Amino acid sequence: MSEEIKLAQTAKEEEVTLFDKIIAGKIPCSKVYEDDYTFAFRDISPTAKTHILVIPKNWDGLSSLFKAEEKHVDIMGRLLLACSQVAKQEGLDEGYRIVINTGPHAGQTVYHIHLHVIGGE
Amino acid sequence: MSEEIKLAQTAKEEEVTLFDKIIAGKIPCSKVYEDDYTFAFRDISPTAKTHILVIPKNWDGLSSLFKAEEKHVDIMGRLLLACSQVAKQEGLDEGYRIVINTGPHAGQTVYHIHLHVIGGE
Repeated sequence: MSEEIKLAQTAKEEEVTLFDKIIAGKIPCSKVYEDDYTFAFRDISPTAKTHILVIPKNWDGLSSLFKAEEKHVDIMGRLLLACSQVAKQEGLDEGYRIVINTGPHAGQTVYHIHLHVIGGE
Repeated sequence: MSEEIKLAQTAKEEEVTLFDKIIAGKIPCSKVYEDDYTFAFRDISPTAKTHILVIPKNWDGLSSLFKAEEKHVDIMGRLLLACSQVAKQEGLDEGYRIVINTGPHAGQTVYHIHLHVIGGE
């Protein structure tokens, strides 16, 4: 079992997440992109040359895709649009992969929805 | 180089895609979900116990995330909502992964945006 999967076993829902603290500047990060709806920064444990996390600023209870409802359609669409912008900015013109891990079996460690932009392996 | 990556080198944009033909019922598939905006069916080369593709019915030029624009926010949000519905329907309550391959380096073989719902490995 990988370290991430182990961590994911004990990960839980929180009102104020690690990522909220990153957005608020209370925890430092390597920021790469920001717009009115989303925020993006480099993963601290990259699995490829480019590995960026894209998160919503106002997540409205969308801790993971388990919680997705009709009211989250705009948030989710803007996350994918931001992923596309980030990839362009990083020069990933030949291709990249978006990954969203949902729940303990998939290794989700922070319950604030986040999309991985992975490229340049 | 995997077979999929090889195929991806020659994949190209099309006006009417393989997936349009599947939605129209001209090519058979193992359908698992459908709503006004999206359609989902089992991948013919599954990489896990559950491997489903979720696609938009009206893709409006969104052949891949390379082409994502503000006008596609609703389509993209509805795709993620549908992924969440499909995962629920399939009983993937312990977790699953969403993957979106964009471009030749990531092995995208059909230029009609599609999201992989993968679970139960």
